[in-house]
Amino acid sequence: METENLSYSHHPPYKVGVPPKQKLWKEFSTTLKETFFSDDPLRTFKDQSGSRKFILGVQAVFPILEWGRSYNLAKFKGDLIAGLTIASLCIPQDIGYAKLANLAPQYGLYSSFVPPLVYAFMGSSRDIAIGPVAVVSLLLGTLLQNEIDPVKNPFEYRRLAFTATFFAGITQATLGILRLGFLIDFLSHAAIVGFMAGAAITIALQQLKGFLGIKKFTKNTDIISVMQSVFGSAHHGWNVPTILIGATFLVFLLLAKYIGKKKKKLFWIAAIAPLISVILSTFFVYITHADKKGVQIVKHIEKGINRPSVDEIYFTGDYLLKGVKIGIVAGMVALTEAVAIGRTFAAMKDYQIDGNKEMIALGAMNIAGSMTSCYVATGSFSRSAVNFMAGCQTAVSNIVMSIVILLTLLFITPLFEYTPNAILSSIIISAVLGLIDYEAAILIWKIDKFDFIACMGAFFGVVFISVEMGLLIAVSISFAKLLLQVTRPRTALLGKIPGSNVYRNIQQYPEATKVPGVLIIRVDSAIYFSNSNYIRERLLRWLTDEDEQLKADGLPQIQFLIVEMSPVTDIDTSGIHALEELEKGLQKRSVQLVLANPGPVVMDKLHASKLTNVIGEDKIFLTVADAVQTFSPKFAEEV
Amino acid sequence: METENLSYSHHPPYKVGVPPKQKLWKEFSTTLKETFFSDDPLRTFKDQSGSRKFILGVQAVFPILEWGRSYNLAKFKGDLIAGLTIASLCIPQDIGYAKLANLAPQYGLYSSFVPPLVYAFMGSSRDIAIGPVAVVSLLLGTLLQNEIDPVKNPFEYRRLAFTATFFAGITQATLGILRLGFLIDFLSHAAIVGFMAGAAITIALQQLKGFLGIKKFTKNTDIISVMQSVFGSAHHGWNVPTILIGATFLVFLLLAKYIGKKKKKLFWIAAIAPLISVILSTFFVYITHADKKGVQIVKHIEKGINRPSVDEIYFTGDYLLKGVKIGIVAGMVALTEAVAIGRTFAAMKDYQIDGNKEMIALGAMNIAGSMTSCYVATGSFSRSAVNFMAGCQTAVSNIVMSIVILLTLLFITPLFEYTPNAILSSIIISAVLGLIDYEAAILIWKIDKFDFIACMGAFFGVVFISVEMGLLIAVSISFAKLLLQVTRPRTALLGKIPGSNVYRNIQQYPEATKVPGVLIIRVDSAIYFSNSNYIRERLLRWLTDEDEQLKADGLPQIQFLIVEMSPVTDIDTSGIHALEELEKGLQKRSVQLVLANPGPVVMDKLHASKLTNVIGEDKIFLTVADAVQTFSPKFAEEV
Repeated sequence: METENLSYSHHPPYKVGVPPKQKLWKEFSTTLKETFFSDDPLRTFKDQSGSRKFILGVQAVFPILEWGRSYNLAKFKGDLIAGLTIASLCIPQDIGYAKLANLAPQYGLYSSFVPPLVYAFMGSSRDIAIGPVAVVSLLLGTLLQNEIDPVKNPFEYRRLAFTATFFAGITQATLGILRLGFLIDFLSHAAIVGFMAGAAITIALQQLKGFLGIKKFTKNTDIISVMQSVFGSAHHGWNVPTILIGATFLVFLLLAKYIGKKKKKLFWIAAIAPLISVILSTFFVYITHADKKGVQIVKHIEKGINRPSVDEIYFTGDYLLKGVKIGIVAGMVALTEAVAIGRTFAAMKDYQIDGNKEMIALGAMNIAGSMTSCYVATGSFSRSAVNFMAGCQTAVSNIVMSIVILLTLLFITPLFEYTPNAILSSIIISAVLGLIDYEAAILIWKIDKFDFIACMGAFFGVVFISVEMGLLIAVSISFAKLLLQVTRPRTALLGKIPGSNVYRNIQQYPEATKVPGVLIIRVDSAIYFSNSNYIRERLLRWLTDEDEQLKADGLPQIQFLIVEMSPVTDIDTSGIHALEELEKGLQKRSVQLVLANPGPVVMDKLHASKLTNVIGEDKIFLTVADAVQTFSPKFAEEV
Repeated sequence: METENLSYSHHPPYKVGVPPKQKLWKEFSTTLKETFFSDDPLRTFKDQSGSRKFILGVQAVFPILEWGRSYNLAKFKGDLIAGLTIASLCIPQDIGYAKLANLAPQYGLYSSFVPPLVYAFMGSSRDIAIGPVAVVSLLLGTLLQNEIDPVKNPFEYRRLAFTATFFAGITQATLGILRLGFLIDFLSHAAIVGFMAGAAITIALQQLKGFLGIKKFTKNTDIISVMQSVFGSAHHGWNVPTILIGATFLVFLLLAKYIGKKKKKLFWIAAIAPLISVILSTFFVYITHADKKGVQIVKHIEKGINRPSVDEIYFTGDYLLKGVKIGIVAGMVALTEAVAIGRTFAAMKDYQIDGNKEMIALGAMNIAGSMTSCYVATGSFSRSAVNFMAGCQTAVSNIVMSIVILLTLLFITPLFEYTPNAILSSIIISAVLGLIDYEAAILIWKIDKFDFIACMGAFFGVVFISVEMGLLIAVSISFAKLLLQVTRPRTALLGKIPGSNVYRNIQQYPEATKVPGVLIIRVDSAIYFSNSNYIRERLLRWLTDEDEQLKADGLPQIQFLIVEMSPVTDIDTSGIHALEELEKGLQKRSVQLVLANPGPVVMDKLHASKLTNVIGEDKIFLTVADAVQTFSPKFAEEV
């Protein structure tokens, strides 16, 4: 018979270690470091000279100085092609997205000019494509129009948009500087999947206005209001030529997308299709004078590059606070999207992204944007994927795109005058459909039901109520899940795996046998104020249940309660109280409390609170097997 | 050499169990039950006839029907003495506490008449003494006067007070009915200690007005405003006779308290001292006409019992929402206090308290109170302790107290006319000093530094800003702690304890030895969206650090990363993604990922996501020892 434990009959059980007492400052700084500097960002600065440290510091803020030194023509070739491709994709998207944000079309283009340039110098992702994106545009538009009517007061509206953009940037940069980047981790993957899909549906529904040529359209974004608008105007509001143009090109775009998906090599067809649609449809409208037949067109895009807008930002007054609030929300959502993209592609190409540094870059680019007539820009899922597939090598592809947008603004915006709105709607619909990741939703359902609830909550919240509400639901459910974890931790009944001295959950290993007269329970969480009462009561209930069962079977009652503490990583004052009360309650029932494998922090606190004396040092063991060996040696030998 | 693991050279390692697949509904209902019905409240209803179930149901709502049947004269003797004792203590306290809530003195007495009666029928604690308490009175007074000036609009103020009381009751009962009682666990023990001490200081400072006889006094409760008021009026506002009376009796009260504390048998001296002070000082003022010399007196207490006030509650209008908000806050704080008291004394006498049922009782009593001119009542720390020491047996002591208050209201309130306010202030000061539990604060410091920060945050928040702010700080810090736990879980490097096959944290057991070429890390938390990225990055950093160290020492690099999953009780979709990415990252470094002892839920999800295929079933082991035996058999045999 071979045994796991150390408690043979001839020597005492192995003593549970108490870690050497740490200095208060040491303990504090370790916690601080683990919380805010877990990625050890200063690693490269170690053991360097002063001037070298300065260079490394500048390089840390502007990574282009680092990777730029090994930049070469081969890389530029990849970046050039990728940059041209994403430029062709983003021009029509930008014009459409600006509309989602209730801004004139040129602001979309502006936002694809300055922010990508800034990002290229400061960002660390090699694959992200920067610019306005559908979800953030919709969110920003919704939040802004709750405050100011964009039709009646376009100037104030635009000023508030720049204010929100400025504070979105400040929020992002601040989170990065304070190393609070982990806050965005609180939006769970599942919630994002649901939110994105809901936003995609909402955006697609909004496009029905342009797609069907409806003039009077609801300002609400929920599906019911939109459907009422659509069918309420069915008799007199729909414009047949518009629908024909829109539908034709939508089919074309979806087909191009399908081909691009089927044959990865032909991805460029999907990438170039929107621009082709714009060119063809614009030409068609121009020669057929379809605009005279009720086909709505873009009409006017201002020519020329971004004007400075720093004097338009509200730094005082009522709108300041509103701008801050909207900026924080839009900034956080934009951040979530950009970081998710950055991480995804970094994992694909296996390079590291420093989340906090990335946030500073995104923040800086939006601050710069807000001063040059741009609204909130971030990383776009669809364009980043195209960028990646087109073979981008570095952030230079963003510079190329930015230059193409510059040329567009300088020379060819007037050509978009006759572009029908229906085409922009078709382009947006085809773009946002890619945000509906139903495969991820199915996987979530399979893996975690609670995650699925969060996903669906966010989805239906966005679709049936509003974008903000969906976001709120997503965050709330995510939080509820975390709180549930810390309030109702699992406890498991352990048994001995036959032929070994290993004790495991008897639910997972039904062949494991219970030790007569001994109840072994594993507590699966740190014991904190939020769960200490629950854990105490739950342990007593395990005991009551087991005793009742034993009584019914005519077997002797439980004499020892062994609490397996391996997963209990920490305990606080409430937890210590709970253990103390548990010990008292057990004493009244003539049951002895035994602890197995308390960790370093727990041992430290058990000693600090003198609870070790109450429980007895001889009741604290290294392993469950040791404890069983001591209190039920016969069983330990036999089974 | 004896070994823990099962993987001898002649048979394969023990297979990790996959629990039988649960039906979705079963899984859902188990989670639901564990969350909301963890105390199994329907246990007694099992296997009973219909009529018996009905009786049990009625008894569940009115526990008096259950314990009343075994009530006897011996028990009544204890309850009578205890009831009379707490009545003598609560009469002067009530009058003083009503002032804290900016209400006329009789409302304090009213609140000690109806709510205790209702509680006696519905409550399950045998030791709690119900009535107005200092902290809730102060909180309610502060919140109410933010909305309505109690001096200018006393009627509206009173109406809002009843409205808040009504909704405090609704809040409490609702939490109980929905079985959301665990929500109050989110206020940590440490935060409560700090909040209570801060509130005690604040209340004591407020008493300086009555104690020094100052007429113009600040409405703010922070220490700076109060001190300005006190010293600003030092030259002309202080009244010497008042101070003399107040100081004399404060010394008497503190002395009585000291004696009661030193000799437990003389606790009644402390209990009866306030009433004696009131009687003596009232008599003294009456015969010396001290009220003519500027000694402020109670002047008027309305005679007669509570009038119905249901028509004074705001059920419509602007004040409804304000009443609801104040009611929720006051109700939650009152609940926290009552439940803490109930639990403390139940643990002392070893009986069970059903938290949710208790909340329904407290809620019902405040709803009834709001309709009979009472303000928020709850369990009082000081009076419950006296009740306990005076030998109370059941809630009948509350009925006795209630009857004494009834007689007081009917016959002797006019006698309080000449009671000096300074005496009431002295009584309150001596009462609230007991809320400053500095010993608990020292213990908290010793056990958990983060808890101490929460404690001090709440304390200084209350003392330097306001009661609400202190409460907010307490709740925020408590939450931050929980979030920190789920965001930055611990990871530990494991080594083999010599002479065994047990693997433990080498920080706790410095004698444990590392396995060459194998890195063993234990992850100490469920892997959720909030920490999945951190855990992935942290594991990689452990690897990088270790490899660097090994390189420096000229030793071979790590080939296997064994992740000890025992504490990982759950994993969600984000966690699965993180593991997947970890696996990819390790592959690039030619390191193999090995899992040890994943629990039932984790195994289930690893299978659902097909991640077991990616990692390989042969890389998942029952114990770390098994894994080491397989990949480093030489080491396992030797050390």
